[in-house]
Amino acid sequence: MALRYGDDVILMLEDGSTYLIKLKEDSQLGTHRGNIRHSDLIGKNYGDVVDVDKTRVYTLKPTMVDYIFKMKRKTQIVYPKDSGFVLLMLDIKEGDRVIDAGVGSGAMCGLLARYVGESGKVFAYERREEFMEIAKKNIERWGLMDRVEFKLKDIGEGFDEENIDAFFLDVPDPAPYIESVWKVLKGSGRLAVLCPTTNQVQSVVERMNEVGFIRIEVWENLFRQYKPNPKRLRPFDKMVAHTAYLVFGMKINQEGKGS
Amino acid sequence: MALRYGDDVILMLEDGSTYLIKLKEDSQLGTHRGNIRHSDLIGKNYGDVVDVDKTRVYTLKPTMVDYIFKMKRKTQIVYPKDSGFVLLMLDIKEGDRVIDAGVGSGAMCGLLARYVGESGKVFAYERREEFMEIAKKNIERWGLMDRVEFKLKDIGEGFDEENIDAFFLDVPDPAPYIESVWKVLKGSGRLAVLCPTTNQVQSVVERMNEVGFIRIEVWENLFRQYKPNPKRLRPFDKMVAHTAYLVFGMKINQEGKGS
Amino acid sequence: MALRYGDDVILMLEDGSTYLIKLKEDSQLGTHRGNIRHSDLIGKNYGDVVDVDKTRVYTLKPTMVDYIFKMKRKTQIVYPKDSGFVLLMLDIKEGDRVIDAGVGSGAMCGLLARYVGESGKVFAYERREEFMEIAKKNIERWGLMDRVEFKLKDIGEGFDEENIDAFFLDVPDPAPYIESVWKVLKGSGRLAVLCPTTNQVQSVVERMNEVGFIRIEVWENLFRQYKPNPKRLRPFDKMVAHTAYLVFGMKINQEGKGS
Amino acid sequence: MALRYGDDVILMLEDGSTYLIKLKEDSQLGTHRGNIRHSDLIGKNYGDVVDVDKTRVYTLKPTMVDYIFKMKRKTQIVYPKDSGFVLLMLDIKEGDRVIDAGVGSGAMCGLLARYVGESGKVFAYERREEFMEIAKKNIERWGLMDRVEFKLKDIGEGFDEENIDAFFLDVPDPAPYIESVWKVLKGSGRLAVLCPTTNQVQSVVERMNEVGFIRIEVWENLFRQYKPNPKRLRPFDKMVAHTAYLVFGMKINQEGKGS
Repeated sequence: MALRYGDDVILMLEDGSTYLIKLKEDSQLGTHRGNIRHSDLIGKNYGDVVDVDKTRVYTLKPTMVDYIFKMKRKTQIVYPKDSGFVLLMLDIKEGDRVIDAGVGSGAMCGLLARYVGESGKVFAYERREEFMEIAKKNIERWGLMDRVEFKLKDIGEGFDEENIDAFFLDVPDPAPYIESVWKVLKGSGRLAVLCPTTNQVQSVVERMNEVGFIRIEVWENLFRQYKPNPKRLRPFDKMVAHTAYLVFGMKINQEGKGS
Repeated sequence: MALRYGDDVILMLEDGSTYLIKLKEDSQLGTHRGNIRHSDLIGKNYGDVVDVDKTRVYTLKPTMVDYIFKMKRKTQIVYPKDSGFVLLMLDIKEGDRVIDAGVGSGAMCGLLARYVGESGKVFAYERREEFMEIAKKNIERWGLMDRVEFKLKDIGEGFDEENIDAFFLDVPDPAPYIESVWKVLKGSGRLAVLCPTTNQVQSVVERMNEVGFIRIEVWENLFRQYKPNPKRLRPFDKMVAHTAYLVFGMKINQEGKGS
Repeated sequence: MALRYGDDVILMLEDGSTYLIKLKEDSQLGTHRGNIRHSDLIGKNYGDVVDVDKTRVYTLKPTMVDYIFKMKRKTQIVYPKDSGFVLLMLDIKEGDRVIDAGVGSGAMCGLLARYVGESGKVFAYERREEFMEIAKKNIERWGLMDRVEFKLKDIGEGFDEENIDAFFLDVPDPAPYIESVWKVLKGSGRLAVLCPTTNQVQSVVERMNEVGFIRIEVWENLFRQYKPNPKRLRPFDKMVAHTAYLVFGMKINQEGKGS
Repeated sequence: MALRYGDDVILMLEDGSTYLIKLKEDSQLGTHRGNIRHSDLIGKNYGDVVDVDKTRVYTLKPTMVDYIFKMKRKTQIVYPKDSGFVLLMLDIKEGDRVIDAGVGSGAMCGLLARYVGESGKVFAYERREEFMEIAKKNIERWGLMDRVEFKLKDIGEGFDEENIDAFFLDVPDPAPYIESVWKVLKGSGRLAVLCPTTNQVQSVVERMNEVGFIRIEVWENLFRQYKPNPKRLRPFDKMVAHTAYLVFGMKINQEGKGS
């Protein structure tokens, strides 16, 4: 599995800085530690420690998390701290048919597409063309275009699908769309709504109760990273304090909790 | 998709209590709200609201998270709050060959098996036969036995595989095994170690540095759930304060950071 | 400073359980480890390790936090995790004249009384007589009655004081009282409002803006305790996830931010 | 209480920026919104809203927390999130004799001095003269010099006092001093140790057990601030993730838990 032109590589320098590149002939990467010629990496393996001129470089295989943090984007992304939990709470699995609205730069869309497998499908709604174009480029780079059907559309007009297994809703004002979401979900289908503010959580939970969702859960998570120094183990000084509240529920085949 | 004998169902009562059952002829479920005959649920759909005698029941499709919380177990499980993040950090995907050591009751093993797909494989090491038997029953119920190779073995003797994509290490004292883990991983392969104590984090990180891992990251996460009352939105009074620290790293093809 | 009849003592057994007693003649304390006669403790010192029959007992001097956790109460108390921060944000100091509404069981009232000193005063409003009686007993035990003026009164009728330095507001629905609070505070006077729900925070902050407060800050805090085992240092499994949000502000001598 | 020359004032501009000044004749404050002449503020009151040229200014009374955040310093300060809790756990009150080692820039020393009152005393140890000088200037500005006895001294030589009520230990490597601390404390006296790393917590707790402390508690706290927008209530994006672990204990009059 020696590296060849066309391969994606994460290059990590000794100071921990990383670069995601696709190996190309006659190309070089400019870094604050000097230039690295792509040709010097051909034939190396993932995991190798390469001395290029005066710079030591680690050649690593990009993970999906790498791609997400390095991708082109114009929107706030869904962080791994949230997306991993959402995948489990939405019970995403091979063959699932999932709606992702709105797509933004495509980070969550890519993860959903990865985990629905070849037999599944992600219907990706986005209202703004400039975001959609970025998302498409990202999904294409990840080789997942076959699994995603993009829809440049305002979701105020409703959704085209039915019998959807799981729904990820990440739009500026989600409460008005809860009823449309309910309609396209299967019975017992799972919904996740990403809400930046407590006000949105309040209106979304109220609407989910009215429309016909149960097992409504509201979560937030705080991820804290430690300095990996075994002699002085302690958290980093700062952390992300908030991305969004996560609201989950399951559709019942009757409005408003059957009450 | 009407419910038939043999189907798994989550029954939820109006007080929120849930039961995971497999529909069987001539069976009934005893609850604190009275008995529910399985035969009364045949022909219903997932998501239905069923009035059985004086009890209202919701018939829901079990998710993997439901199975994990309802499964038989004799060990501490890896919580969804941790496992979702581990899946992303280990970059688990179709076709991956992964080692899970030790298996315990099989919660993480099941998730790994789900996400490596049919072309992937999980090698599941466990030293204690009683845990292994429980894990096997759980994996079998989830229909994932084809993807898991169980190994009743003390990992002190090393691992049988090579060129492993990702490794999940969850044993009482992990530091002594870091070198064996390094040997079986591919270059750039991902490792996740679950460490309940700070002392373990210290020894694991030290060992990972010595043996040849980079991008070492140490995380912990706090998940907080809110009472889903839109008029009085606030967190529940108590929460899980700690399960484990999560240590991640990537193998380089040279010992000790090449230093 | 040998212990005498009339002294308060915290007795701690070897299992960590604690008892707050006042030493009395001919009295004994019944514990799950046997009876402890008060007379056996006379002449001992704070900090002593005393073997009484088969039980080892530590004789400790009660702290204010001990008194608060051991006091008689019928209401939720303000926890030290919150009250210490409130004291600083309210800038409580010798000579301050402070209003505490509602008093509840008197935990916060006692702390305020302690720190305003002999030249300060706490005006303690409480609507329910049964709570007031408990608060009085607690304040009396702490020897702080001279510094507290109790008022059995519904605060809907307003407050009797003026030129108040600091105000602690802890009532079920605080927003309607913000204007009355503003009236009795000095210019630049400090307000702290304890709000269990996000809905209350929203209405209180909105009202504070309208009425004439600046430097409005909203905080919450998570305190996490570790098992004090140096070989296996890790947090306890569970923690308090939420007590209340803390809203702070300073009065300006003009309504609504002067806008 | 009109403002006069010599008074301390916090000036807050409309964008929330604050300045701590002492009013002086013929002085002015340069801000990014223009200059503010001190003379324009004479005769105003705390809490006033003053229009100076084109700038709106709020004249506020500085709190101790203001002084701490605005003071001159060369060291990391103890944050209010930690210091408020420490004050309660150390049970600081009028008349207490307290040791503060090392003093650093004097933030904690000032708080201790404020709350021990006129009849109490803080013995403030600091090894580095440059820090001591800064701390003295800060304590002087707060008018608390009568209550503090400064000691320019390496605490490796021990402490000069005895029968100390409470001890605050905040030095780079605290474990070696635990025994000296024990010697100067009263029976049942309270100790708080500030430990940035988990390794320090481990060694401090171990030493406290050996030397003769009980009720050993280890805490950390996470304070999270919300954007005070009632229509979009949510936490700020970033927060302080870690300052230090707080270790507490009480002295018993016998070594090593009397075991």
